[in-house]
Amino acid sequence: MTTRDDNFSTQEYQRRIGKTRRAMEAAGLEAIVVSDPSNMSWISGYDGWSFYVFQAVILRQEGEPIWWGRAMDANGAARTVFMQNDASIRGYDDTYVQNPDKHPMENLASLLQELDLTQARIGVEMDNYYYSAAAHAALLAKLPQAELRNATGLVNWQRAVKSEQEIIYMRRAARIVEAMHARILELAEPGMPKNHLIAEIYATGIRGAKGHWGDYPAIVPMAPSGLDATAPHLTWDDTPMKTGEATFFEIAGAHRRYQCPQSRTLFLGEAPRKYRDAEAAVLDAIEAGLEQAKPGNQAQDIANAFNATLNKAGFEKDSRCGYAIGLSYPPDWGERTISFRRGDTTVLEAGMTFHFMPALWLDDGGLEITEPILITETGHECLCNTPRSLWVKT
Amino acid sequence: MTTRDDNFSTQEYQRRIGKTRRAMEAAGLEAIVVSDPSNMSWISGYDGWSFYVFQAVILRQEGEPIWWGRAMDANGAARTVFMQNDASIRGYDDTYVQNPDKHPMENLASLLQELDLTQARIGVEMDNYYYSAAAHAALLAKLPQAELRNATGLVNWQRAVKSEQEIIYMRRAARIVEAMHARILELAEPGMPKNHLIAEIYATGIRGAKGHWGDYPAIVPMAPSGLDATAPHLTWDDTPMKTGEATFFEIAGAHRRYQCPQSRTLFLGEAPRKYRDAEAAVLDAIEAGLEQAKPGNQAQDIANAFNATLNKAGFEKDSRCGYAIGLSYPPDWGERTISFRRGDTTVLEAGMTFHFMPALWLDDGGLEITEPILITETGHECLCNTPRSLWVKT
Repeated sequence: MTTRDDNFSTQEYQRRIGKTRRAMEAAGLEAIVVSDPSNMSWISGYDGWSFYVFQAVILRQEGEPIWWGRAMDANGAARTVFMQNDASIRGYDDTYVQNPDKHPMENLASLLQELDLTQARIGVEMDNYYYSAAAHAALLAKLPQAELRNATGLVNWQRAVKSEQEIIYMRRAARIVEAMHARILELAEPGMPKNHLIAEIYATGIRGAKGHWGDYPAIVPMAPSGLDATAPHLTWDDTPMKTGEATFFEIAGAHRRYQCPQSRTLFLGEAPRKYRDAEAAVLDAIEAGLEQAKPGNQAQDIANAFNATLNKAGFEKDSRCGYAIGLSYPPDWGERTISFRRGDTTVLEAGMTFHFMPALWLDDGGLEITEPILITETGHECLCNTPRSLWVKT
Repeated sequence: MTTRDDNFSTQEYQRRIGKTRRAMEAAGLEAIVVSDPSNMSWISGYDGWSFYVFQAVILRQEGEPIWWGRAMDANGAARTVFMQNDASIRGYDDTYVQNPDKHPMENLASLLQELDLTQARIGVEMDNYYYSAAAHAALLAKLPQAELRNATGLVNWQRAVKSEQEIIYMRRAARIVEAMHARILELAEPGMPKNHLIAEIYATGIRGAKGHWGDYPAIVPMAPSGLDATAPHLTWDDTPMKTGEATFFEIAGAHRRYQCPQSRTLFLGEAPRKYRDAEAAVLDAIEAGLEQAKPGNQAQDIANAFNATLNKAGFEKDSRCGYAIGLSYPPDWGERTISFRRGDTTVLEAGMTFHFMPALWLDDGGLEITEPILITETGHECLCNTPRSLWVKT
């Protein structure tokens, strides 16, 4: 949120809504209930850490979107959404909050009734963190004549190609993650407790870069060392960094909720041959993957080129090597649409943004050297200028 | 996670499992599928930021709990769970991740089949962020003969009374949030961009206090000023702090995932009469509420005493004024069980911990002066020593 300027013009929200309505029409939906906070924000501008209670944006084929949530958060909605009409913000009373005797979805059902949607085909994001099995059951029970259809990803897919303003924010987030990595390289040394380094990473990211403030990343900084780095999603404690160990830093800069993740790996001391070999293989494989990153190619082309080159060098990676990025809220900074992996035939278009994430987990550590990229009219652009290598401090 | 010492002894996990099994038995459940990351951690020790993909701990009446998740995260499980048996960690391959063509729950169904639970009564946490409507549908489809019952909150309720070791971690988190508030009082001043102050709050919290490292809070620091503070869940931007404005700081210290939230409000410049009146009312109402915070009383007794005193002074608060706290992961630092509000008849017991959260939102700002508390054998203890008043810097 910002008290000083809106993140996007009303025209941009109207374009997004138009796009979404066409997708709804193609799916035969008269309305959608959007529970994913990043989709809610993309459609309405809403921004707040209130997604731990049930909330949604309701979009029909006509009229303004309607923000629906806890009454306490209606003020936050009024201060962040583009809609001007008071009737476009609807709050439910606090007795619905975390109360097993009543479910907020009963209140949403009343609102949908009021909107004359009791017999409508309504899309719901069935596979979203913020749309639980119980929420669905409560909504179904109160709207027995409506047809609730699975619309998971419907809005996410509309977000794949970024607008000019979105790309501006992604670039600012890129400057921020560059600054975070520079700070790591400056400070990390044997004996430094990991949490002290994480504190500096956080502070650098939130201060921002080049005059642009830092927002919170949708995932905390991940920075495991040594054997812990064989596991990609462990967080920190106060273990001091050690000579002879690699640490990977999987972090994101964020600006106005736009996320630019990038990873680098730092070896303290002389890097052993195995790490140097892995570095060489990954750098070659990144080049091979990036060559395929252009409009008209498919998402899997990047993964296939990357994997072929990696395999030739004797390494293997059995997980996806990239995903779409943009506006996001915890617990994931990806858009949960396109993946760089075999079988993903999505055609790349100019304006799409991805985290090309060719991480390798070795038997005694991890190597992550990754690139956030923008697909351009003619190929791609790496959003960051962070030096692309295994970093070594001796 | 920690590479140096376990957070809890195996005996403590066994006690927790015993408690949970008795609750399962009372509910007629042969097994539970635990998706809530805080419940997973409480039962098994698992810790990692991997909850953006589907994962669970399966607990039966016999045998070790089984950690189930993405294959990539199995190493992280091996490094954090108390279970020693390799068969207690089960990973699914990466093609299940964010792939609309197959759902990880199909893999979980196979595991439950292998465990001979195809015809069992299985508890699932239907109203949890990490158990979506689609997850439930996918599991049901593959286990047509099982009876999936709603077990939302079953594990959460077992966590209400804290062990000695848990209270040690809560106290460390309390020292951390005290240090964060002290830093705010030291640094905040007119002209300071809000994100710079947030950067310092984060860094202080993660560095930790009294020799104990800081973990990530389950909610980001919230620190809205002026009119933004009429909305409780807005986050920050770079707007400079201003003379004549109140800012509330709703923040938590965290240690080994245990969360100690506490809020204070800072007025820059002379606080107007309205704020002083609100402060006096809230402080009196806190005293009245705390008097009721003792074993044998009900949760609602605190709320009723608080509200009666507040109303006498001419103020009203229509939302709950507290909730259970402990081990937590985003997006919520509460335990989602007990609330301080009329109608919550939960009987307080020694060892329970709460965030007594008597926030007031005024027409032009917010006033939050809150206390994390521990119910003791004879009454209660405030976990923090942070000065309890409206803070003013002129």
